[in-house]
Amino acid sequence: MKIAVCLLSGGLDSATTLAVARRDGFACHALSFDYGQRHRIELAAAARVARSLGATDHKTAVIDLRLFGGSALTSDIDVPKDRPAAEMSHGIPVTYVPARNTIFLSFALAWAEVLGSSDIYIGVNAVDYSGYPDCRPDYIEAFERMANLATKAGVEGAQRLSIHTPLIDLSKAEIIRAGLALGVDYSLTHSCYDPDPEGRACGHCDSCQLRLAGFAAAGSKDPVVYRP
Amino acid sequence: MKIAVCLLSGGLDSATTLAVARRDGFACHALSFDYGQRHRIELAAAARVARSLGATDHKTAVIDLRLFGGSALTSDIDVPKDRPAAEMSHGIPVTYVPARNTIFLSFALAWAEVLGSSDIYIGVNAVDYSGYPDCRPDYIEAFERMANLATKAGVEGAQRLSIHTPLIDLSKAEIIRAGLALGVDYSLTHSCYDPDPEGRACGHCDSCQLRLAGFAAAGSKDPVVYRP
Repeated sequence: MKIAVCLLSGGLDSATTLAVARRDGFACHALSFDYGQRHRIELAAAARVARSLGATDHKTAVIDLRLFGGSALTSDIDVPKDRPAAEMSHGIPVTYVPARNTIFLSFALAWAEVLGSSDIYIGVNAVDYSGYPDCRPDYIEAFERMANLATKAGVEGAQRLSIHTPLIDLSKAEIIRAGLALGVDYSLTHSCYDPDPEGRACGHCDSCQLRLAGFAAAGSKDPVVYRP
Repeated sequence: MKIAVCLLSGGLDSATTLAVARRDGFACHALSFDYGQRHRIELAAAARVARSLGATDHKTAVIDLRLFGGSALTSDIDVPKDRPAAEMSHGIPVTYVPARNTIFLSFALAWAEVLGSSDIYIGVNAVDYSGYPDCRPDYIEAFERMANLATKAGVEGAQRLSIHTPLIDLSKAEIIRAGLALGVDYSLTHSCYDPDPEGRACGHCDSCQLRLAGFAAAGSKDPVVYRP
């Protein structure tokens, strides 16, 4: 069976991506990161999702990105709430974590090389991407090119590593419809940047707003619990 | 003053690279990694070198690459000893750590972005590079290209990030001569992959052999202590 490394945050997009990788016939090695994020609760969601979608293995790498700061997700900067859609789609928000996807993909590359895998799945999205530079197609292509020069396989010309981004051109509603068709149980996922101590979503951060708008546009109801 | 992030392992090459960055007029933020390496003692050397060469700051990121295994430097595979030079210069040795430089450069990229720096120094070397794929010039160029698409600055076109590799075309002897001319105290550095409990170098691993041959070719004496 072909092996893939699948980045899995525990959110809606990465859960859908894992389901696509499973449908594509891969034995999936799911990889999550405990990076000092304030919504650390997503790691429990990642474990639930990995189990539910039949991942072969699930590892969580501990890397404390609070070492550098610079993001509302890893430091004491406030998470923005109730931003209008037009504002969310322009500029880079304070929830951007510097070089996060580059770091995550680098770890995935290391694991892929050890496993002898030439396939990495990541749930980046260039439509509702909330202004993050490291979600754009030209960035992913450049990472793939670099990765093929970074590894033993690259030197030996044995195999070509591919970064799969099945969601990159989909709207949030299309992602949700695709996931529902593949049997993803979205009640297991977690998206909120600012959950309360019981893990309930705030409903007002960029991530909650994109998620709620996506379910509405898909004509479906979001099964996660929002705080009153 | 211009700011640079300088990868610093505590070895001979990275110490020389830091000295070059200081000579180039940068305020240097040195970055080391506690990644589960068996020669963890190099971290104390990194701290000594950072202080000695006047780094502005020195951080050590903790990332446990033993999570994936696959290298003699992070798992229980034996470190090879007394390999002939011809063998060292062909193929990829078991001391290769999958995607290590990609991971290290990704963290440097994150810190550079937070600091507003557009300069990263890394002491890779394509001459005596011991067969590592992620030390080659085309790999470094591909990383630089990717990095410029990964970050806020890349999106906003504000500045161009450069990966500086001042040692890439130098022999070990040339590196040592350059470092001595810049006042590097090599007694503070550590290169051995397999030190004894007192931190003394083995003299027989690839790293020790390259270092000893380099000092001999430079007409100088290695000031570190080798075990009898």
